Amino acid sequence: MSHTSRVKAKLLARGRRIRGQVEAVERALEAEIGCADVLMLVASVRGAVNGLTAELTEEHIRHHVVAPDDEPDADRACGTRELIDVVRTCLK
Amino acid sequence: MSHTSRVKAKLLARGRRIRGQVEAVERALEAEIGCADVLMLVASVRGAVNGLTAELTEEHIRHHVVAPDDEPDADRACGTRELIDVVRTCLK
Amino acid sequence: MSHTSRVKAKLLARGRRIRGQVEAVERALEAEIGCADVLMLVASVRGAVNGLTAELTEEHIRHHVVAPDDEPDADRACGTRELIDVVRTCLK
Amino acid sequence: MSHTSRVKAKLLARGRRIRGQVEAVERALEAEIGCADVLMLVASVRGAVNGLTAELTEEHIRHHVVAPDDEPDADRACGTRELIDVVRTCLK
Repeated sequence: MSHTSRVKAKLLARGRRIRGQVEAVERALEAEIGCADVLMLVASVRGAVNGLTAELTEEHIRHHVVAPDDEPDADRACGTRELIDVVRTCLK
Repeated sequence: MSHTSRVKAKLLARGRRIRGQVEAVERALEAEIGCADVLMLVASVRGAVNGLTAELTEEHIRHHVVAPDDEPDADRACGTRELIDVVRTCLK
Repeated sequence: MSHTSRVKAKLLARGRRIRGQVEAVERALEAEIGCADVLMLVASVRGAVNGLTAELTEEHIRHHVVAPDDEPDADRACGTRELIDVVRTCLK
Repeated sequence: MSHTSRVKAKLLARGRRIRGQVEAVERALEAEIGCADVLMLVASVRGAVNGLTAELTEEHIRHHVVAPDDEPDADRACGTRELIDVVRTCLK
């Protein structure tokens, strides 16, 4: 099942932003700015990659496992919402 | 839905092992052994907590979302198995 | 070199708090409360263990590598303060 | 203090490799390959970013805090080597 074009656009925008952040790290390494400043740039890449991991996992759950808003079984819908909360908390 | 008693026993054993590791950290802090050795003990707690997170999340998926081995919809069973792989890779 | 008793008391208090959190996880597993609630308890253990890792690493730097406030070499003092910032950002 | 050109080349090569991995993620998102496969690509970015964090932190310690191989104070050299071990274990 393919994602909606809205979701695809959002994920692609996240991917482009991460590429921009990685290019900033490369320029910083090239320019030999202070290590501590490069490390802060790298930490921001790490945060963005974790955010993309959480978002992709959530999309995978909604599209390939259970879509909680369309699920007729109330227990399963609830369990899926709880799982999405866990993914947001633990992967970010 | 409650877990099987086998799963419960396994999770409880993990919990007890983590408590034992934390008690070792406390004794190490009390005895003022070298920082680096305490840090290695703390790193092992961290690994064990991540392992428990992954195992609990997998149990949650199997019991409250989709049990892939009993799921008649093949796509959903496959998507769930992929999700469990992601959880094992990303949470551990 | 041993830590001051103030630092030791603070680290021991952190260790005890983590043990209390792990015992709460064990009780939750025993009582079979919902997976999602247990996972939130486990996530709080993880946060606390990461906090202890960062604090122990900072203490190790201050006591066994360079104490930035007592360091006569200004560049080294600055580099050490930057390192402590990195540890606080990346290990927590 | 600037790094040696050998270290700089090694860090730049890591940066370029991460950019290549991020571009692969972008292509995968564009091509709508399966979520699970994209997630494995993202997990490899995460590993590479953690590796860069650990290596940059180690370089920072060696160049701006204490160079353990040139340090006359044996305790300080030992404490620094232990710190580098912690960084390699906990940041990767």
